[in-house]
Amino acid sequence: MVPAIKLNSGFDMPQVGFGLWKVDGSIASDVVYNAIKAGYRLFDGACDYGNEVECGQGVARAIKEGIVKREELFIVSKLWNTFHDGDRVEPIVRKQLADWGLEYFDLYLIHFPVALEYVDPSVRYPPGWHFDGKSEIRPSKATIQETWTAMESLVEKGLSKSIGVSNFQAQLLYDLLRYAKIRPATLQIEHHPYLVQQNLLNLAKAEGIAVTAYSSFGPASFREFNMEHAQKLQPLLEDPTIKAIGDKYNKDPAQVLLRWATQRGLAIIPKSSREATMKSNLNSLDFDLSEEDIKTISGFDRGIRFNQPTNYFSAENLWIFG
Amino acid sequence: MVPAIKLNSGFDMPQVGFGLWKVDGSIASDVVYNAIKAGYRLFDGACDYGNEVECGQGVARAIKEGIVKREELFIVSKLWNTFHDGDRVEPIVRKQLADWGLEYFDLYLIHFPVALEYVDPSVRYPPGWHFDGKSEIRPSKATIQETWTAMESLVEKGLSKSIGVSNFQAQLLYDLLRYAKIRPATLQIEHHPYLVQQNLLNLAKAEGIAVTAYSSFGPASFREFNMEHAQKLQPLLEDPTIKAIGDKYNKDPAQVLLRWATQRGLAIIPKSSREATMKSNLNSLDFDLSEEDIKTISGFDRGIRFNQPTNYFSAENLWIFG
Repeated sequence: MVPAIKLNSGFDMPQVGFGLWKVDGSIASDVVYNAIKAGYRLFDGACDYGNEVECGQGVARAIKEGIVKREELFIVSKLWNTFHDGDRVEPIVRKQLADWGLEYFDLYLIHFPVALEYVDPSVRYPPGWHFDGKSEIRPSKATIQETWTAMESLVEKGLSKSIGVSNFQAQLLYDLLRYAKIRPATLQIEHHPYLVQQNLLNLAKAEGIAVTAYSSFGPASFREFNMEHAQKLQPLLEDPTIKAIGDKYNKDPAQVLLRWATQRGLAIIPKSSREATMKSNLNSLDFDLSEEDIKTISGFDRGIRFNQPTNYFSAENLWIFG
Repeated sequence: MVPAIKLNSGFDMPQVGFGLWKVDGSIASDVVYNAIKAGYRLFDGACDYGNEVECGQGVARAIKEGIVKREELFIVSKLWNTFHDGDRVEPIVRKQLADWGLEYFDLYLIHFPVALEYVDPSVRYPPGWHFDGKSEIRPSKATIQETWTAMESLVEKGLSKSIGVSNFQAQLLYDLLRYAKIRPATLQIEHHPYLVQQNLLNLAKAEGIAVTAYSSFGPASFREFNMEHAQKLQPLLEDPTIKAIGDKYNKDPAQVLLRWATQRGLAIIPKSSREATMKSNLNSLDFDLSEEDIKTISGFDRGIRFNQPTNYFSAENLWIFG
């Protein structure tokens, strides 16, 4: 049984979920369906992942077959950068809900604190970072306050039970808390032993905001993007220290890395298309690392971030993690 | 001759200035006077430094004696956290100008992106972080946008020629640029070989914002505060690698550290009460480090920040550098 984290919105969020980034549309329906059968209840999606229609089909099949009820699921989606203008938020959420075949999201996040010029879904969807799909990045003038105010109206209209943010640094979160009428329920961040982010976690804890870790295995999620540091760094899943810790508990490195995160109080959203891995990830909470082992793993911290926009393409005004 | 940096406001800012943090009021007047005699033209002050009256006396004496004219000086001050509410900004700037005996600042910065509840100057000045001067930290609801809008009105009213920010992370700066009618001319940050902050510098450069480095000597500025990591770390001024680089150019470690910063394009604001050091710091631009030496010094980066509020006192909601 996956434990729940009580959000400041009053809702329970499963501490272990399934991440849908990089799940190809051709298999997404089956992956989601199988993950539900394996016991997953939280699915972490986004406009930008380009697979919301297919993920929704997997959910619909599982509900139709009586494996799960809608209210037992916790469906997360995210607002893409090109929809930050206040009047663009509700229409795109309604489109995303239609894609999923759902009436509400359980949690809807601002994906990145980067407002880009609107791209109509009929022109290109998902729109990505570039206005023209190739080279031109065009900022919009929408402030985070404008976007957050529109996010709040989603809750009032019943389109999302909870709202939150992703990829926010501490100061922007602090500023948002000055004007938020509805406080963010969660903060989703890149988090792994090479990027421990203790200060940001401290702030989130002090402010009662739950934190979800993505890319829990570190460079493994980014090797395909030809990032030099992702390819040169010791893969955490093959690291001798992580392996040795796992051996002590009869667990594999993935389970060690996930448990390290959950014992630090975070929610996790690993992904797998293999049933055995789905299950071992889901069941990664059935043992406890010693305080010393947790400290050893935290000692890997090198402040190395992979999911920085400028790691994917050149855009000097998008060095947003400094 | 100290070179100037052309600000986006159209004004020239000397690349080397004199930092007034921790200059005791009992000597501040003489220190400023002597620094002007030594050739300094930029003085970096703040409400929080508690010495603006005395610094102003040093300026007045130098002007009275004909050593310098007001328009040849570049006086910087900063808005303290307790004056972020929009209607508090202009009154406190007028008080700070009166303290200095000046009619305008050349540059006025938001000191920290942290809005705290107003403390009347008649109650306590400078007010510091704690509402009651001892234990209680009380946030205000002022957003950075509210504060920045009030900062912009200072320019319109002639109270400051340029305005900027200090201790801002990239994302908050990016958000500010969505709504700024007057863009920040400068960003002042902690910057030394243990905290290189290349990503933030990239963003500032892309956005045409000049960057001023403080605490250029790293832990040396913070040893007196009993910060464990400031005391345990290798002092940069005694580091064998820095010393060896200095020997190559016949320069001392301080000059090497300052030149490393200015060759990276930053302005610097070192402080000294000794005349010889004042001059050697001011003249730290008369040689060039090789690209290789710059790279070696940048390789010291460990992401170690000293001037984090939570390093001085316990306040879990002030982990603002995560």
